[in-house]
Amino acid sequence: MEKFNSSITYDRHLWEADVQGSKAYSRGLEKAGLLTKAEMDQILHGLDKVAEEWAQGTFKLNPNDEDIHTANERRLKELIGETAGKLHTGRSRNDQVVTDLRLWMRQNCSMLSALLCELIRTMVDRAEAERDVLFPGYTHLQRAQPIRWSHWILSHAVALTRDSERLLEVRKRINVLPLGSGAIAGNPLGVDRELLRAELDFGAITLNSMDATSERDFVAEFLFWASLCMTHLSRMAEDLILYGTKEFSFVQLSDAYSTGSSLMPQKKNPDSLELIRSKAGRVFGRCAGLLMTLKGLPSTYNKDLQEDKEAVFEVSDTMSAVLQVATGPRAPGFTAGLACCPQIHRENMGRALSPDMLATDLAYYLVRKGMPFRQAHEASGKAVFMAETKGVALNQLSLQELQTISPLFSGDVSHVWDYGHSVEQYEALGGTARSSVDWQIGQLRALLRAQQTESPPHASPK
Amino acid sequence: MEKFNSSITYDRHLWEADVQGSKAYSRGLEKAGLLTKAEMDQILHGLDKVAEEWAQGTFKLNPNDEDIHTANERRLKELIGETAGKLHTGRSRNDQVVTDLRLWMRQNCSMLSALLCELIRTMVDRAEAERDVLFPGYTHLQRAQPIRWSHWILSHAVALTRDSERLLEVRKRINVLPLGSGAIAGNPLGVDRELLRAELDFGAITLNSMDATSERDFVAEFLFWASLCMTHLSRMAEDLILYGTKEFSFVQLSDAYSTGSSLMPQKKNPDSLELIRSKAGRVFGRCAGLLMTLKGLPSTYNKDLQEDKEAVFEVSDTMSAVLQVATGPRAPGFTAGLACCPQIHRENMGRALSPDMLATDLAYYLVRKGMPFRQAHEASGKAVFMAETKGVALNQLSLQELQTISPLFSGDVSHVWDYGHSVEQYEALGGTARSSVDWQIGQLRALLRAQQTESPPHASPK
Amino acid sequence: MEKFNSSITYDRHLWEADVQGSKAYSRGLEKAGLLTKAEMDQILHGLDKVAEEWAQGTFKLNPNDEDIHTANERRLKELIGETAGKLHTGRSRNDQVVTDLRLWMRQNCSMLSALLCELIRTMVDRAEAERDVLFPGYTHLQRAQPIRWSHWILSHAVALTRDSERLLEVRKRINVLPLGSGAIAGNPLGVDRELLRAELDFGAITLNSMDATSERDFVAEFLFWASLCMTHLSRMAEDLILYGTKEFSFVQLSDAYSTGSSLMPQKKNPDSLELIRSKAGRVFGRCAGLLMTLKGLPSTYNKDLQEDKEAVFEVSDTMSAVLQVATGPRAPGFTAGLACCPQIHRENMGRALSPDMLATDLAYYLVRKGMPFRQAHEASGKAVFMAETKGVALNQLSLQELQTISPLFSGDVSHVWDYGHSVEQYEALGGTARSSVDWQIGQLRALLRAQQTESPPHASPK
Amino acid sequence: MEKFNSSITYDRHLWEADVQGSKAYSRGLEKAGLLTKAEMDQILHGLDKVAEEWAQGTFKLNPNDEDIHTANERRLKELIGETAGKLHTGRSRNDQVVTDLRLWMRQNCSMLSALLCELIRTMVDRAEAERDVLFPGYTHLQRAQPIRWSHWILSHAVALTRDSERLLEVRKRINVLPLGSGAIAGNPLGVDRELLRAELDFGAITLNSMDATSERDFVAEFLFWASLCMTHLSRMAEDLILYGTKEFSFVQLSDAYSTGSSLMPQKKNPDSLELIRSKAGRVFGRCAGLLMTLKGLPSTYNKDLQEDKEAVFEVSDTMSAVLQVATGPRAPGFTAGLACCPQIHRENMGRALSPDMLATDLAYYLVRKGMPFRQAHEASGKAVFMAETKGVALNQLSLQELQTISPLFSGDVSHVWDYGHSVEQYEALGGTARSSVDWQIGQLRALLRAQQTESPPHASPK
Repeated sequence: MEKFNSSITYDRHLWEADVQGSKAYSRGLEKAGLLTKAEMDQILHGLDKVAEEWAQGTFKLNPNDEDIHTANERRLKELIGETAGKLHTGRSRNDQVVTDLRLWMRQNCSMLSALLCELIRTMVDRAEAERDVLFPGYTHLQRAQPIRWSHWILSHAVALTRDSERLLEVRKRINVLPLGSGAIAGNPLGVDRELLRAELDFGAITLNSMDATSERDFVAEFLFWASLCMTHLSRMAEDLILYGTKEFSFVQLSDAYSTGSSLMPQKKNPDSLELIRSKAGRVFGRCAGLLMTLKGLPSTYNKDLQEDKEAVFEVSDTMSAVLQVATGPRAPGFTAGLACCPQIHRENMGRALSPDMLATDLAYYLVRKGMPFRQAHEASGKAVFMAETKGVALNQLSLQELQTISPLFSGDVSHVWDYGHSVEQYEALGGTARSSVDWQIGQLRALLRAQQTESPPHASPK
Repeated sequence: MEKFNSSITYDRHLWEADVQGSKAYSRGLEKAGLLTKAEMDQILHGLDKVAEEWAQGTFKLNPNDEDIHTANERRLKELIGETAGKLHTGRSRNDQVVTDLRLWMRQNCSMLSALLCELIRTMVDRAEAERDVLFPGYTHLQRAQPIRWSHWILSHAVALTRDSERLLEVRKRINVLPLGSGAIAGNPLGVDRELLRAELDFGAITLNSMDATSERDFVAEFLFWASLCMTHLSRMAEDLILYGTKEFSFVQLSDAYSTGSSLMPQKKNPDSLELIRSKAGRVFGRCAGLLMTLKGLPSTYNKDLQEDKEAVFEVSDTMSAVLQVATGPRAPGFTAGLACCPQIHRENMGRALSPDMLATDLAYYLVRKGMPFRQAHEASGKAVFMAETKGVALNQLSLQELQTISPLFSGDVSHVWDYGHSVEQYEALGGTARSSVDWQIGQLRALLRAQQTESPPHASPK
Repeated sequence: MEKFNSSITYDRHLWEADVQGSKAYSRGLEKAGLLTKAEMDQILHGLDKVAEEWAQGTFKLNPNDEDIHTANERRLKELIGETAGKLHTGRSRNDQVVTDLRLWMRQNCSMLSALLCELIRTMVDRAEAERDVLFPGYTHLQRAQPIRWSHWILSHAVALTRDSERLLEVRKRINVLPLGSGAIAGNPLGVDRELLRAELDFGAITLNSMDATSERDFVAEFLFWASLCMTHLSRMAEDLILYGTKEFSFVQLSDAYSTGSSLMPQKKNPDSLELIRSKAGRVFGRCAGLLMTLKGLPSTYNKDLQEDKEAVFEVSDTMSAVLQVATGPRAPGFTAGLACCPQIHRENMGRALSPDMLATDLAYYLVRKGMPFRQAHEASGKAVFMAETKGVALNQLSLQELQTISPLFSGDVSHVWDYGHSVEQYEALGGTARSSVDWQIGQLRALLRAQQTESPPHASPK
Repeated sequence: MEKFNSSITYDRHLWEADVQGSKAYSRGLEKAGLLTKAEMDQILHGLDKVAEEWAQGTFKLNPNDEDIHTANERRLKELIGETAGKLHTGRSRNDQVVTDLRLWMRQNCSMLSALLCELIRTMVDRAEAERDVLFPGYTHLQRAQPIRWSHWILSHAVALTRDSERLLEVRKRINVLPLGSGAIAGNPLGVDRELLRAELDFGAITLNSMDATSERDFVAEFLFWASLCMTHLSRMAEDLILYGTKEFSFVQLSDAYSTGSSLMPQKKNPDSLELIRSKAGRVFGRCAGLLMTLKGLPSTYNKDLQEDKEAVFEVSDTMSAVLQVATGPRAPGFTAGLACCPQIHRENMGRALSPDMLATDLAYYLVRKGMPFRQAHEASGKAVFMAETKGVALNQLSLQELQTISPLFSGDVSHVWDYGHSVEQYEALGGTARSSVDWQIGQLRALLRAQQTESPPHASPK
């Protein structure tokens, strides 16, 4: 039962946050007259000692240390004596643990935010570098229209910028001080919560002590943030796994990111991409688990809430690993940023374009000659059918043949059969023309700069 | 198979948004020179006619109308002839459907936002009105410390303000124009997307056409928003169900919100609260379902995405119903805002307070006399044990008896045994003292005002 | 609030089960002496009348009919007068509703069981018919080894047999009588539950009245059954979507099961397969929702349980539609059973086989000559690398070249380069050799026969 | 990336299963003529050595050991030399890992099955011992009818017997041999899978090699089994948490299973029960995660499947801990079996019964006098209202007063007001009468005996 109840095996990750929080709280107690200056200094010094032991790996856990908070206070008492017993005045484990968790997550979100921006930046760089490569755009996995390869890269990068924006919002709600809420009723000893907030550099103060000690919205939000981000990465991984099949042969996974088979000597498997894809499930499972735990829970702190920390730690680790693997190493001559597919096969990409992908352009040709789109769509469909029936490519139909479908066809229809010309039509914002792709790159670079500015100063703890 | 594929049974909800979107698009086509002014007017007039038929319930669906978009365009053609065939020029169902959905959800979020604020406001009003009622605060469902009843109300109201804040963020990401993205590559006909944005009053323009037509982040976010909000309401409902048991007898459910038993004549069941609690599961199930559908989906539009709409419609309906039931009617003499528990039993609440709930205060008494908290906590624990052993209430211990535990006890210990005095100690921000509760009420009122200001102007479609 | 509470909009599906249950219960009351024979006959006759009205669509709902049970009893009273008031003696809505739901689900499971067997049978037939087609087997979506196309079909059919087995187990637990449990305490009037069981043809009787009225294991199990079955079908759909891409070109979706594009005239999209894939999310969402609703619910009936029925009805409808679409029509000359990909492109399948897929066989060649497998694997890997370096196919390496890798290579190595010979090696049970594929077909046919026998007699209600 | 890919940190749990599987496979190779008797003996001996090192904690992992399979084979080679290279002939990591996992889970399920039966047995014992205690039965958490306390215990025990039954079914599907499936195509070297099955004591052989190496139904089923079982335990925990509140005061948590507060000296919190309740979320999260990972996965083995093992290990550990904590220690004089609430407060339970809970019996009184139940229900409701209005208990109404409601009331109505008499009416199977409770106890004991018999012989590995 003790083992069942204990949390020290995982909440030891919070050692630094716990020391930070206690240092701030002892300052609060001093200002409130509950510690003398000398007692406060003794405690601060002792806590620094505790932190030093953790940092150097010399902190020794006792079998009775059921959580990080009791461990740290126990050690503090060994180091400075009875004064340690004054530190917890007016504080409860309920407000202490949630303060620690918020401190830890705040720092962790800054780290993940930086990793995510690095991934986006690498993708944008790559989109810029490979801007002139065309290949098939797919819908329903069927070849649809010619697009720029960079347009595909940017489609995934743009999705990730929403994750980046959301992470800042989640971080904003993490960055709120609960300390001074006690177990449930608040703090009765005149501790100045504004001082605590400033000491710990929080952006705001929780409004209600009952809510503060028992709400885990910021945990649920973080887990959902991770789930949605992983969903994006799972879709990108799926695309790259497909593009890396023999049948597509558009990309080549780097050796360092693929593995062989214990049985089949010729195999090279995209393990890194498959793991990225699979982690979406694991991460979302943690989100689902927490919400189920929260559902219908009576007000205020219940031990059920102890489930929050393992979920946060595991998901943070997973996100950190996935973002780094997806970014890949930045090395000279290495084009990273696509879950480590350093190389693309431009010729294969080009070869995969086929005239039937220009059927829409053929319809637009007729539209430009004045035909209503619905009729033009039908006429182009007839041309596709005619080509199929005759067993020739769409662009092999003669002008005469086309004219049996519509008299609007004339010699200039030949301009339609140029993939480069096709993509350059899509100049509206967000399209696949070169100017539009450049605009996207500019927008993303501006976003990255803006987020960096908005980004929090306390990436590392005080 | 046709039935399996068809979406008209539910996407007809989008009729108004579809007409709005098409009107804006026809203006875009006119500016781009693809429609004459006369053709545009013809289309606009025809679309108004279509809208009128829907509004009056006279629109007749054909068996071949597989979705709302084909239905509306089919009807437009019947009304205005071949010109209708020009409306879809350069547009795809892919960008059309997502534009419609965003328009619909934008309006719906405004409505839900208003309902949520109304619920919070009702709760704040009630917290203000019932500010002088004390009752037991619980942690782990064990009696912990005396608190104000209003403090409990506000703990749930504060949680809902986070939902309100999040909903505005979700709405911001909904409020982005995808129209002009075509099927995948963008718009090749010079349609001015900035004009479309302004016409439809969107806040921004999607950056990448592939992403724009296939991302459903805003749907996932909305579903998660609802899940977290329902989790809050499930916790409030759980509390009220408990408080409404014979054993607690703190609140009385109104007759209109409870039901009898088909077997047991004396029963009055809190059905409304139970339904609120249960809906957290349903709503989260939709969120889980959508994320699973999105996981590993190849890039761009796939028919899988058709699953988005039923989820949105069902969850919107559920949220709307739950928020209204939780708010209750606003009638003279009716104190609403607590999932329709109009009446509280103040005497029962008072009777439930017991001296052992002041054990923490007893420890603080010693702290104020200079004893370190850890020792004071232990001393108070000894007093609790002594009272239990003697079979008396904690406040029945004589001064002599207390002094066997600590010589610091003196005559003024009697001041501890006053519940009113106890709660008034918790004056730090967020605590349960009257001043702090008033501060909370002020903060919430300010938040509500701020959100109203920030709140979107286009609650109803143009 | 009334609308919020009411369930008649969906539980009207239970009308037939409700009448069945009431008929059985009135016989129980008669045996217990609580109805005279004449009263029972009056009630039975009245209930038949009610059923007739439902069957003919003439049953009229009143605004006050909050659920199917009150509606039926209200109508019964209109038809036969006060005697109707005796029907509910000793019964509660709690045991009534769960009896009705079990009756409905029992019949529904029989229907789904038959549809599932039909799908498996169609697949087995097809596997038999197309047994001689070889194509690449993939792991990690990389070409691995040549296999029979039928082996792939059977891999999915075998997965579905587990679903079929599980459905029978779920049905067994559905098929248990709860009637006679009252609201919570049981039945106090001597009603013979064994008689009720026999009347309604249940397989067993619930053991505890509190559990009987409030457990929804059978619902959760059913929803999970559906989730796992849909996961299987989502994987099959994913394969077929890939095989139907231009790049793979192994299968051709039938026109009736694919749709065009509103923009791109050349497109043919595998909508039916995508919908099958997507429904896995929806169905699992319902399962997740119900479990979350059940979590932490206090004992016995709570209104939260009302969430069970919509989940069951929606999932049943989805499963029924998906299984039928996946099976496709049985028409002369139509090879169904693969989510409606009637046609395979044998030549493309053959062309996709390449000598490097025989690298494992090359290793086995050396193993058969006595080389330990680990060395043989390495030697074959060297051959693959040599061929790649030289830019030739693996089977283009000369004997001399191979012998530089190992002296064990001799002239008979040429036998390795035969795909037909390769697959025929896999004769162990479950392998891809023809004999083994035939064995699988035999096993599946036997399973289908066995399940048909075990299958329940009361597919249609009494 | 290597760290991202590696699984040795957790799959080392499989060491024993991996050795077992390899021993069986080497016998298969010998029979197939691919190993000489001497080579087989050498391998068997070496594998025993490897197992010994693991058992004694002396096995040393190399940095290159990416998983347990490579670690064991690497060590085998160090111990016996090149012959080790023959062990993997015709085998793939794909069939090896799933064989290992099935062996591990089979044993683990036997262990969990035994723990679950022990919990049920303890509950049944307790139900028998405390059979004469009456207390209120609740529906919707409102007092409903008097029941036996044992009836409540048995309601939860009965739910657990379904879990026990389901676990046997899951185990049956775990207990199927996949070895001999290779990577995808089967085994080409004549290995006798029936021999492998017999060696490893599996109940059956997988039917299709592609399915065998990539289906994880048995994992999903196990995770769902655990989720549903935890849902049951979460409901029992919720009840006990409520019954342990001051307001209910029906049960007393043992000190060893509750914890104090860091702030409030008087608190005793039901931490063990809260943890049980909360784990339902965690366990279901793993189930949700795996299903999401499986959704839409292409056929056969993909690295995504590596997510299976951590889920299984964590959930197994959680279930084992929860079942043991829920059972509690078996000590003389200690009544366990209720998540460690050794003591009940019989007097409080009795005091909580109130005459209005007999209103249903009052209706039955009238039914027995010939009044139709609907009228009797209404008449009893009038009596309840009359008592409330007069401010007296229901049994304080005089006969004259009752007769104003119905002339059928006579002197014998006084027999209604006896709680013991009330429960004894519920003699139908599954009811709360003593005879019926005894019947339940008998049924459960018989079930436990039957499952023990059916229960698998190989609880411990060969």
